Amino acid sequence: MANSTSATATTEADTPPAKPIGFPPGFRGAAVYSGVKEDKTKLDLSLIVSDRPVVAVGVYTQNLVQAAPVLLDRQRTPTTQARGVVINSGVANACTGAAGLADAKQMTALAAEATGAGPEEFLVLSTGVIGHPLPMQKIAAGVSAAAQKMAAGPEALEAVARGMMTTDTVTKIRSRTIRLGDREISLVGVAKGAAMIGPNMATMLAVVMTDAVLEASDAQAALSEAVVESFNCISVDGHTSTNDTVLLLANGAADGPPLADRDLAAFRATLVEVCEDLAVAIPADGEGATHLITVEVHGARSRDDAVRIGKTIADSPLVKTAIAGADPNWGRIVSAAGYAGVPFDPDRVTLLINGLLVYDKGAPVPFDEATVSDSIANQRDTLLLLILDEGSASARFWTTDLTAEYVRLNADYRT
Amino acid sequence: MANSTSATATTEADTPPAKPIGFPPGFRGAAVYSGVKEDKTKLDLSLIVSDRPVVAVGVYTQNLVQAAPVLLDRQRTPTTQARGVVINSGVANACTGAAGLADAKQMTALAAEATGAGPEEFLVLSTGVIGHPLPMQKIAAGVSAAAQKMAAGPEALEAVARGMMTTDTVTKIRSRTIRLGDREISLVGVAKGAAMIGPNMATMLAVVMTDAVLEASDAQAALSEAVVESFNCISVDGHTSTNDTVLLLANGAADGPPLADRDLAAFRATLVEVCEDLAVAIPADGEGATHLITVEVHGARSRDDAVRIGKTIADSPLVKTAIAGADPNWGRIVSAAGYAGVPFDPDRVTLLINGLLVYDKGAPVPFDEATVSDSIANQRDTLLLLILDEGSASARFWTTDLTAEYVRLNADYRT
Repeated sequence: MANSTSATATTEADTPPAKPIGFPPGFRGAAVYSGVKEDKTKLDLSLIVSDRPVVAVGVYTQNLVQAAPVLLDRQRTPTTQARGVVINSGVANACTGAAGLADAKQMTALAAEATGAGPEEFLVLSTGVIGHPLPMQKIAAGVSAAAQKMAAGPEALEAVARGMMTTDTVTKIRSRTIRLGDREISLVGVAKGAAMIGPNMATMLAVVMTDAVLEASDAQAALSEAVVESFNCISVDGHTSTNDTVLLLANGAADGPPLADRDLAAFRATLVEVCEDLAVAIPADGEGATHLITVEVHGARSRDDAVRIGKTIADSPLVKTAIAGADPNWGRIVSAAGYAGVPFDPDRVTLLINGLLVYDKGAPVPFDEATVSDSIANQRDTLLLLILDEGSASARFWTTDLTAEYVRLNADYRT
Repeated sequence: MANSTSATATTEADTPPAKPIGFPPGFRGAAVYSGVKEDKTKLDLSLIVSDRPVVAVGVYTQNLVQAAPVLLDRQRTPTTQARGVVINSGVANACTGAAGLADAKQMTALAAEATGAGPEEFLVLSTGVIGHPLPMQKIAAGVSAAAQKMAAGPEALEAVARGMMTTDTVTKIRSRTIRLGDREISLVGVAKGAAMIGPNMATMLAVVMTDAVLEASDAQAALSEAVVESFNCISVDGHTSTNDTVLLLANGAADGPPLADRDLAAFRATLVEVCEDLAVAIPADGEGATHLITVEVHGARSRDDAVRIGKTIADSPLVKTAIAGADPNWGRIVSAAGYAGVPFDPDRVTLLINGLLVYDKGAPVPFDEATVSDSIANQRDTLLLLILDEGSASARFWTTDLTAEYVRLNADYRT
């Protein structure tokens, strides 16, 4: 990312983490099995709490059909007086009407009561099947149990990330620390995303916690920018869920004045990195998928143009099946770019697959098909690099390949 | 279609044809195996000729990357002086640069010479793999051979339709006759479309022939309108190919003055019907598909809104896999509508699957899941009927389900 340059000098990347990480200072969490999921070996209720009020901001699904927790969190953010987030998996509390909204409110009230916060100081996230009511007795018991177990270490963080999961196969935790003068700031994010398999549960949820001191307006601007550069640049089904939510919680435990100027810029750049790491982890965890595809578009007239072309290529089933079959099928990629709705001169387009030139300034070039095919077959990552030669803007977009296993997983599911 | 009402009184639908049909008066055709395809049992070169000049108009792919035959036909249409169309399958003559354009021109010159037409009086269509040059010697021999076999009957028409096919499993021929006063007008269309399986060959081609007398401007307006209501309302891969072309050839063999007023309106309505029949035949022929899905959107504020929502539902892999699995998963359908980018009130949305109510004014309703599932499983056609209650506009959109077989067919292909 161009934006990350300013921060890398003072940033330690830990993806994958060199050692297990815990919550940022002032945050704690816990997760339990409450009985919403059928499988008793799983966790399905997570609690995140700050020991002091947090600035909380959110970015929410653009789907017109919005789940109850989204409607509630939208009302409550931005705020400077939040204390935590309660999260359940298994039931999405979506398409549940007024009763669902009452349940979402009740869920936050239960979490607040169990942790000594005010009744409206909690936010709520839900993910799972649509159209089913939350089993509130189970939720209530789960919240009480989780509140007894709050901790700040790596195990508690791992549990919180696990309690958000639906069809994820791995937890998604990413972090950065950033030194600003004599202060060290932590950013720790957890996310869930069902990637290729999303039987009513393709929801993407993420919570980024930081001990930075932030004005609410700066926090909102930083998160909105970061989401555009990260979560908005992944696509699995092309399907925007009813529950998609990204929250940023800043509790100010690092003390000092609110971040401003260069410090704020460094924080924002680092937040983009954390969000990008979390976002890429979602398509990377496609159970039915065999490849994580990165589409890089360079030489566009604007970033919007580049994103649009990247998304069109990433959403093409013909491109996705070609990668699944290790087929260096440049025709499908170039032609997908051509119908993205972005004007460009086809005679100046160049395409590289995994660094190997296959299409040069509007014309196919001779290449060793076996070499390119092997480069796709022999690694999980595939890089499609498209150069438009129209301008200087660029973007990256991530998706998975499309496999028969994906179809089986999604077709065999029953409502 | 609302538009077809005015014409149905004077129209005999013949889908499927009660008896084999041939070319409209004044048209003839033939097809041969020229050697472009590997399989010698197939046909790969078709010729359509009129015994007098035709008004020829076209509607072409909106992909920025356009194959040589598209570039050439765009230059030559609309025209009142065309004589025919030469069509090859197996090689798309796309992404072939200046040499490809010269080949396309040469192909039309060969067809013109073989049939006694002027060198620029032919149009050309190609479909097949991208990036390969046309084998011009084989094409030349094929054109000569086809020109020796021209005929007007059903067998010749069937051969022409077969010579256009790539991965199609059946020929696509649809027709109407329409009585206007004492004149009987024929409309006969042939199309090819690779439906769910489109290994570089997802191209959709169609030629509609008529003996009507038409002004070129009226022909263009009629075809443009018909394409919007038909071929623009089908989606298989969401992939607009480099070669997509629909041609209308009107040779005036029915004599009399050019159609005008009510006669022209009746012709236009009938052309919409023929194009719709041809268009629906494309997703209906998905080898890997087990369902033809019709998405009907009613109560939209505009037809554009309705089409956009229909297309978004039709392109959702989660919806398409649900239908493949006979899963009455209304959540995926309602949520796809929600991210189509069209404003509507989610609390007024109603959804029926195969006529069975599953979602009523923004809320799920109890329904017998087995009954709805069986209604999907036990027939090839699935109807998703979405009512927005926002206005009076509507649209239909057609697609296929998404099966593991589709992925296998597309992933196993090699460039």
